[in-house]
Amino acid sequence: MEVNNTRAWESNIRRVKPYVPGEQPKDKSVIKLNTNENPFPPAPGVQMVLNNMDVDKLRLYPDPSIGLLVDELSKFYQVNKDQVFVGVGSDDVLALAFLTFFNSDKPILFPDITYSFYPVWCELYRIAYETQPLDKTFMIVKGDYYKDNGGIVIANPNAPTSIYEEISTIEDIVSHNPNSIVIIDEAYIDFAKGSALSLTRKYENLLIVQTFSKSRSMAGMRIGYAIGSKKLIRALNDVKYSFNSYTLNQTAILAGAEEVKDKDYFYERIQNIIDIRKYSEKEFQKLGFSFPKSGANFLFVTHESVPAKELYKALKENNIYVRYFDLPRINNYLRITIGTRQQMNTLFDYLKTILIADKAE
Amino acid sequence: MEVNNTRAWESNIRRVKPYVPGEQPKDKSVIKLNTNENPFPPAPGVQMVLNNMDVDKLRLYPDPSIGLLVDELSKFYQVNKDQVFVGVGSDDVLALAFLTFFNSDKPILFPDITYSFYPVWCELYRIAYETQPLDKTFMIVKGDYYKDNGGIVIANPNAPTSIYEEISTIEDIVSHNPNSIVIIDEAYIDFAKGSALSLTRKYENLLIVQTFSKSRSMAGMRIGYAIGSKKLIRALNDVKYSFNSYTLNQTAILAGAEEVKDKDYFYERIQNIIDIRKYSEKEFQKLGFSFPKSGANFLFVTHESVPAKELYKALKENNIYVRYFDLPRINNYLRITIGTRQQMNTLFDYLKTILIADKAE
Repeated sequence: MEVNNTRAWESNIRRVKPYVPGEQPKDKSVIKLNTNENPFPPAPGVQMVLNNMDVDKLRLYPDPSIGLLVDELSKFYQVNKDQVFVGVGSDDVLALAFLTFFNSDKPILFPDITYSFYPVWCELYRIAYETQPLDKTFMIVKGDYYKDNGGIVIANPNAPTSIYEEISTIEDIVSHNPNSIVIIDEAYIDFAKGSALSLTRKYENLLIVQTFSKSRSMAGMRIGYAIGSKKLIRALNDVKYSFNSYTLNQTAILAGAEEVKDKDYFYERIQNIIDIRKYSEKEFQKLGFSFPKSGANFLFVTHESVPAKELYKALKENNIYVRYFDLPRINNYLRITIGTRQQMNTLFDYLKTILIADKAE
Repeated sequence: MEVNNTRAWESNIRRVKPYVPGEQPKDKSVIKLNTNENPFPPAPGVQMVLNNMDVDKLRLYPDPSIGLLVDELSKFYQVNKDQVFVGVGSDDVLALAFLTFFNSDKPILFPDITYSFYPVWCELYRIAYETQPLDKTFMIVKGDYYKDNGGIVIANPNAPTSIYEEISTIEDIVSHNPNSIVIIDEAYIDFAKGSALSLTRKYENLLIVQTFSKSRSMAGMRIGYAIGSKKLIRALNDVKYSFNSYTLNQTAILAGAEEVKDKDYFYERIQNIIDIRKYSEKEFQKLGFSFPKSGANFLFVTHESVPAKELYKALKENNIYVRYFDLPRINNYLRITIGTRQQMNTLFDYLKTILIADKAE
């Protein structure tokens, strides 16, 4: 029934450049170090909540205010409830924040190397943007963000570089922009030195966005959140309610709240990953890799002699998935998630084999 | 720390008219007939899937293509997999469809009395629209949709009127609009005579949107879907991937697939509600109410002497929630969800008391 001719109605379809997400292989023998998931499970309470779930409640719409989870997050981060917004993963929260806050005629600013969704959301919502080049070491040049703009978004730690910028740099940029809304995308912040969250007390125009997908081991549950001034959170909620009042499903609300309650497990799990990161750094160095200092649950590595693309393919053939971006400035790097120690050792073993084979050629 | 003065950055915030969703009371003694939820639980398999969920899998991102659920839906509706799109409730699917398909300079068309989200999405995405008045009996005037337009959206059965338009009316409108994309929002279709789904074989520009929130008893899980031509579904997926690749969480995918598998229970549950609707129609008539013929899991009732607003308040005081819209043309109507027979009898008992008290005054 499909006809290949282009019809008049097709001209009304919005054209976008689709983002290609990291592969989610169904083969369970794959060592998956390509999408920065956490190698450890969520808090034990999450299992309990799902196993004891009364399915009859699914008949009813979930609480549109996501009260239970907002409460737990506000306690954890010691902010008021009206300073917390929750969405379906940080991508949902960020996209909604772009739509809500970037409505100026001036372009918004973000680094040239950063999360690849930013330009896509700009195109989707027809937001003008201007990328600012990171320096040679992939660090932000603060002065680039002093110019007139329609908003700023900075991922800290940055992806895919893993680099953490000091809070003083973030504050410098926010303080130079009293007329813009500044979004700090802190998806990886729990693996770094410290969040810019405390700055929200001082700057009403600063929004912090975080996620359950990395440090909280719940990528599969789709939970992200924003913390900021009452004014910013109210604006996000107004747009959310006008768009889709009921977003998080009941299992996500219940499971998310349980995960946040378990502070000890949260900090322990993060420390585990930081320890494996330290170990991995040494192993990568031994093998001839270098990388920027990481504030994330991944390393952004480049090898002294073997091209990244070659390594990426060789690893994939051996059922080890890492991420490779064929983009200017970063096409000789691999973004490698910190897995369990065992997974990392398997990776290092394969890398040794590959690198020796390469030398022998 | 909050300052009440308006700052320059606030001018960049998108202003919207927020939708007010039906109340979700926490008091469990409330009889909730206000948001058209299903009074019966989801399929037994859903309970099993959640209870046996391996929480460790939540570490990983869900399948961005939602393959498992798309498969089950394509089998159920006997369409190809590339003709099914799944989203976070039909609000999410519809909003995405508006964004994807309504990009003409011409206004889109929909009835003056219909789902209140349509104008809100138009304002959010800056889509021009023109409402077309329903006739005195709240029926569509087909000819109103023959004019040049940028797209059409029709809820069938319509909300809040409950009225089902014959497929011949839908086909007449679609066939007059070869240059527009036509969306039929069939949230309530399973309680009516028949879906326009079969028309998608003939019309590539027709998109059918349905939901798990009504006939499938899973409002709390947030699952909606669209069925249409490969071209339309591909366009929706392209925009989705560019916006938020991972939308449905793992529990929703698993639970949704289980619900779709259980055909017998699905049809039995629908028949139950249709039976209670028939019973309720008679009871309402005895009490002096009238209503259009319903094709939904609710009735849109008006009383011969007591104003709807008064009844709404009185019922609420008695812990029975129904929906009242203080809007032109419909401000003497109540939208009342079909609950269990017991819930309906409690409603009728209270109505009797209220109506007698009213007469005595």
